[in-house]
Amino acid sequence: MALSPLSSTLLAAKQRLGLTFAALGSQLERDEVWVAALFYGQATASAEQAAILLAALQLDAGLASQLTTYPMKGALDPVIPTDPLLYRFYEILQVYGLPLKDVIQEKFGDGIMSAIDFTLHVDKVEDPKGDRVKVTMNGKFLPYRAW
Amino acid sequence: MALSPLSSTLLAAKQRLGLTFAALGSQLERDEVWVAALFYGQATASAEQAAILLAALQLDAGLASQLTTYPMKGALDPVIPTDPLLYRFYEILQVYGLPLKDVIQEKFGDGIMSAIDFTLHVDKVEDPKGDRVKVTMNGKFLPYRAW
Amino acid sequence: MALSPLSSTLLAAKQRLGLTFAALGSQLERDEVWVAALFYGQATASAEQAAILLAALQLDAGLASQLTTYPMKGALDPVIPTDPLLYRFYEILQVYGLPLKDVIQEKFGDGIMSAIDFTLHVDKVEDPKGDRVKVTMNGKFLPYRAW
Amino acid sequence: MALSPLSSTLLAAKQRLGLTFAALGSQLERDEVWVAALFYGQATASAEQAAILLAALQLDAGLASQLTTYPMKGALDPVIPTDPLLYRFYEILQVYGLPLKDVIQEKFGDGIMSAIDFTLHVDKVEDPKGDRVKVTMNGKFLPYRAW
Amino acid sequence: MALSPLSSTLLAAKQRLGLTFAALGSQLERDEVWVAALFYGQATASAEQAAILLAALQLDAGLASQLTTYPMKGALDPVIPTDPLLYRFYEILQVYGLPLKDVIQEKFGDGIMSAIDFTLHVDKVEDPKGDRVKVTMNGKFLPYRAW
Amino acid sequence: MALSPLSSTLLAAKQRLGLTFAALGSQLERDEVWVAALFYGQATASAEQAAILLAALQLDAGLASQLTTYPMKGALDPVIPTDPLLYRFYEILQVYGLPLKDVIQEKFGDGIMSAIDFTLHVDKVEDPKGDRVKVTMNGKFLPYRAW
Amino acid sequence: MALSPLSSTLLAAKQRLGLTFAALGSQLERDEVWVAALFYGQATASAEQAAILLAALQLDAGLASQLTTYPMKGALDPVIPTDPLLYRFYEILQVYGLPLKDVIQEKFGDGIMSAIDFTLHVDKVEDPKGDRVKVTMNGKFLPYRAW
Amino acid sequence: MALSPLSSTLLAAKQRLGLTFAALGSQLERDEVWVAALFYGQATASAEQAAILLAALQLDAGLASQLTTYPMKGALDPVIPTDPLLYRFYEILQVYGLPLKDVIQEKFGDGIMSAIDFTLHVDKVEDPKGDRVKVTMNGKFLPYRAW
Amino acid sequence: MALSPLSSTLLAAKQRLGLTFAALGSQLERDEVWVAALFYGQATASAEQAAILLAALQLDAGLASQLTTYPMKGALDPVIPTDPLLYRFYEILQVYGLPLKDVIQEKFGDGIMSAIDFTLHVDKVEDPKGDRVKVTMNGKFLPYRAW
Amino acid sequence: MALSPLSSTLLAAKQRLGLTFAALGSQLERDEVWVAALFYGQATASAEQAAILLAALQLDAGLASQLTTYPMKGALDPVIPTDPLLYRFYEILQVYGLPLKDVIQEKFGDGIMSAIDFTLHVDKVEDPKGDRVKVTMNGKFLPYRAW
Repeated sequence: MALSPLSSTLLAAKQRLGLTFAALGSQLERDEVWVAALFYGQATASAEQAAILLAALQLDAGLASQLTTYPMKGALDPVIPTDPLLYRFYEILQVYGLPLKDVIQEKFGDGIMSAIDFTLHVDKVEDPKGDRVKVTMNGKFLPYRAW
Repeated sequence: MALSPLSSTLLAAKQRLGLTFAALGSQLERDEVWVAALFYGQATASAEQAAILLAALQLDAGLASQLTTYPMKGALDPVIPTDPLLYRFYEILQVYGLPLKDVIQEKFGDGIMSAIDFTLHVDKVEDPKGDRVKVTMNGKFLPYRAW
Repeated sequence: MALSPLSSTLLAAKQRLGLTFAALGSQLERDEVWVAALFYGQATASAEQAAILLAALQLDAGLASQLTTYPMKGALDPVIPTDPLLYRFYEILQVYGLPLKDVIQEKFGDGIMSAIDFTLHVDKVEDPKGDRVKVTMNGKFLPYRAW
Repeated sequence: MALSPLSSTLLAAKQRLGLTFAALGSQLERDEVWVAALFYGQATASAEQAAILLAALQLDAGLASQLTTYPMKGALDPVIPTDPLLYRFYEILQVYGLPLKDVIQEKFGDGIMSAIDFTLHVDKVEDPKGDRVKVTMNGKFLPYRAW
Repeated sequence: MALSPLSSTLLAAKQRLGLTFAALGSQLERDEVWVAALFYGQATASAEQAAILLAALQLDAGLASQLTTYPMKGALDPVIPTDPLLYRFYEILQVYGLPLKDVIQEKFGDGIMSAIDFTLHVDKVEDPKGDRVKVTMNGKFLPYRAW
Repeated sequence: MALSPLSSTLLAAKQRLGLTFAALGSQLERDEVWVAALFYGQATASAEQAAILLAALQLDAGLASQLTTYPMKGALDPVIPTDPLLYRFYEILQVYGLPLKDVIQEKFGDGIMSAIDFTLHVDKVEDPKGDRVKVTMNGKFLPYRAW
Repeated sequence: MALSPLSSTLLAAKQRLGLTFAALGSQLERDEVWVAALFYGQATASAEQAAILLAALQLDAGLASQLTTYPMKGALDPVIPTDPLLYRFYEILQVYGLPLKDVIQEKFGDGIMSAIDFTLHVDKVEDPKGDRVKVTMNGKFLPYRAW
Repeated sequence: MALSPLSSTLLAAKQRLGLTFAALGSQLERDEVWVAALFYGQATASAEQAAILLAALQLDAGLASQLTTYPMKGALDPVIPTDPLLYRFYEILQVYGLPLKDVIQEKFGDGIMSAIDFTLHVDKVEDPKGDRVKVTMNGKFLPYRAW
Repeated sequence: MALSPLSSTLLAAKQRLGLTFAALGSQLERDEVWVAALFYGQATASAEQAAILLAALQLDAGLASQLTTYPMKGALDPVIPTDPLLYRFYEILQVYGLPLKDVIQEKFGDGIMSAIDFTLHVDKVEDPKGDRVKVTMNGKFLPYRAW
Repeated sequence: MALSPLSSTLLAAKQRLGLTFAALGSQLERDEVWVAALFYGQATASAEQAAILLAALQLDAGLASQLTTYPMKGALDPVIPTDPLLYRFYEILQVYGLPLKDVIQEKFGDGIMSAIDFTLHVDKVEDPKGDRVKVTMNGKFLPYRAW
């Protein structure tokens, strides 16, 4: 899971300046998760977004071309994550994957939830018995085409 | 991904009677995803829930003991799912896993979202450009304990 | 790569009657590849299509419900196919995958070719130096969404 | 999926000069996909093609010998690609592989489509509902030899 | 490595009658290795060959249709063979694979030896220091096509 | 499949001098495949052979000790080769492995073909319909010992 | 299993100074296993703990930020450990995993032992027949939530 | 993770009679975890223990020979468990394995904790903030022998 | 690790009659390990040995043909054994494999110890501190052949 | 299978001085296999042994601390060895593993041969038909403990 030099540079600048993804997201008018995806080389910025981000991080504007190229995506190593926070999402797929498939298909028919035309949010839900993590995924339903 | 005899029996009865997980969920006062998890041997029913479900499905009440035992969980084969609907959730983990980890830890500190004290909902969001699947996960944040 | 009982029944009937996928496709007004996908449990028929197919194959109409349910898709075992015809398509991905990614993204931007809103045709191109197989894939381009 | 130094040099030069694979293909009188394959070390250039390409990219002619040697081919890491654009082609093989095998063999007999005597094109099909990617593969049919 | 029922039937009949693959090959006018490939579901017989073989094995002529269909090929389980005789061929690939690639390409250019337009013979070479196995592979050279 | 520094040095010298494995084999009085195996660190030279080879390649005689040590053998990465030329040999094992085992055992009894007391030759067979690659393996038969 | 530069630095300092994890644990008021987890990048220190540890190890206080960031956890390579001491814990899971699951569920119901709200101790139990290692794990029971 | 017929029989009898592993352990004068290991074919009973157990479960005494043979041990499928309760023990090894190794070796020297001369207990620790699972492993330390 | 019907039959007869492999070995004039290998389908008997064995086990002489055919060898599942007794031999290879290679090659030159022209004995060495298992392997050294 | 810097240094010194493991073993009063294990980072030396070894190899005494730390053991990559000499030991486990388990358990009861309290010798047995490698393993039998 070695980070690319670009990711390391971006993360180090963010830490040095004490910025959050949420704060950067406000400047970019994008969700904090999408901003983090950009940091990890999983999303593509427009030229304008790249310029704003590099300025906010006080980094060389010459890095912009690396933010605007289309990245090779997919970043887990090993393919089944061993980090406990990441593994829980894999476990959810193991335990609730088949139920999820059936419920989605019962509501929508034969097809899938797009992971491309897709958004992902994280909210903190305060709770006296322990705060809760709320993750909301929203993807376009794509019905299978017969031809 | 061979279903257990119990899962096959439950799914066949549901199909024969034209029931939905949502309708069964209303009778059980449980979410449709949890009901589907029970069908796939990923959750445990109380004796009362087992009786209600078997009656709704017009099945032999003697199957109740199988619904109330603690199942061996985790149901995907192969371990990286090949079904496209299921794979998209794995792909989300590949592409957005590291961003998700960073955003959760930025909001909560070092720890994880529980996949045990956890709920999962599926909503259909109507949209003129194509309906959207909304999946909401809600798990208790568990901070790492130092000792 | 054990076939489901339904697939075996459909394939045996087709062989017994000397039918081709192309002929069945004409009756169903669907492409022969899609018809074969239906045989292998990778596509879902409408009730009307199921009835036409079962009649053409002189099979029990009671099998229709199995053709109209949403299948668990993905059928290769082992995950890297060992059958030489199938392996060549995997090899094309190994050898020409990165070039294909770059050319598609150069033409379309950051996104993917859908494998859901997708069609697939096979043509025989006669050639005196040896006939050629022409495979045409056609999928909707889905641009990544930033949020 | 670390690129070779040669691939990185070629891609950087192309980006710096704002060239497309299609434009380079015109100069080389080769398809843009084949040119991209050459960039990724999956194809071999003639001495003349190497000279034209290096000139077009304003690179040292001394790199030619690396373009004319026979490369070790096959470039995906991990063996099941995790990049979403590349994965869709693997998914097509998972879902439509067996149908494709049957349809090809029904049309041609026992044998394979060559991945060596083979060409691959990408076209952009404009469509008001969303542009479509058209991928055309064309390989010689090779019948199995009995001896 | 469970054999198909057809393979088991063929092998049992051959053993019961005390026939060799060489003897069957004489009747079929085919090499003994090809005949063994037919037994293991890796090759396709013509109708006439199927009839000759089943007669020679004193088996029901109704099995012919199974011998004339195009089989799903590739039969090793696990994918790296553990049987010592088979493993040695894998070891040859591990140890001499790269040398073989270089020598073939030095003699022929960029391309491959076909495993489809291909024959395979086994000879026994008597030697006072211990007999030797001679395996001869002969495949058409297929040069890579640029397009 | 990173080459060792020694292999890279040897291959570069050979290319620079325009030598073939066959020409080097003549000087060493060894087959070209064995010479290539020596280049790839899969065989051990005698001190005399090392001296001849290094002289022929105009390399420092001090490299001789690396050619005369016993190497760690087995060089494919990944374990199932993805290079098409190499994969075809793996495919031959998948498709013709079981037939080969049966034919060898029918001729020789229970045992194996040695991959140690073993030679390997490559010949070019000219053919108007396309030249053919002829690969000849010759290994001592080793019968299983009972004790 | 390459250690991070931070881990190597910490371990080398500890060895140079002849310190034990137990001694460092006393200074940090934490268990020796937790201290070792911090060394291996599996736990997060508070700013105060980082300062104490770096002082004890006579290391640059500037390393503190690396000790207080949230690490990517999970450190075994390969995923099934080959080190004999580590493998024994995997073997315990292989041999006693199912019994453990049943006994825990018999005592607690459907749920898991948390590996997050969790402590781990190692004690040496002197025994004339050979000293014994006593490992005590203590994790909060988390019951599955139905919703 | 298909249970053997013997395991299924034993577990069904235990469930039918409403017995616990602890209760059976009292009769056998063995820990409940060891009794569960015997149920899952991971331990060997003496003839006397087999007789007591079968009587307690009201099963045929003829099953005793299956309880007294030496089993093939190791029962997880897949090798990385997907059941959440079992996975947590694997995760502990991923996260705390290296720290555990260092602490054990710091206390004992070079060697391992035996998983053979080994005991395993499970205790329920009541806690107002949520009960806790306490797992105690106790294995003989085996120092490496130099020879 | 499902046993073949033949292996199960042989093992059950041996257990029923209270025979040991050593006793059967005396009758067959073969080592007990070789006899066990025959039981597990890893060795081939002569017709005479098959007859003696079946008589000693009071089994149907008609099973002889199964004992005299050449078996598909290699019997571990999974490929890295999980049974603790078997795993220790794999661990010996992990820990002492490279030392063993060097010592054998230092004594013999470049080559291998044959696993075909090979014998294997197990002795019990009584020792007051605990009996010891002595395993003796004896295989012909096979030097690599250069050609 | 990259060697550690320490292993490379030790092996290079031994080669430069023309020493054998046997000669070093005499100085250390240890078996040559154990000495080789020390070279490969699989065993731990006492301070005195480290000093003797480094002197014998004319190396810097400062390396001693690396020889006296407890190593991370297990050194094969890939996990199934591809080197032919090493693979043969894996093959012995595949072919003779189950027979070995049965014979050991028939002689000793339920338990294992220790790979920790364990010695390993290699002898050369001269034989006019070809010298033989004799490998002797000797490990303490460890019976399973019931509790």
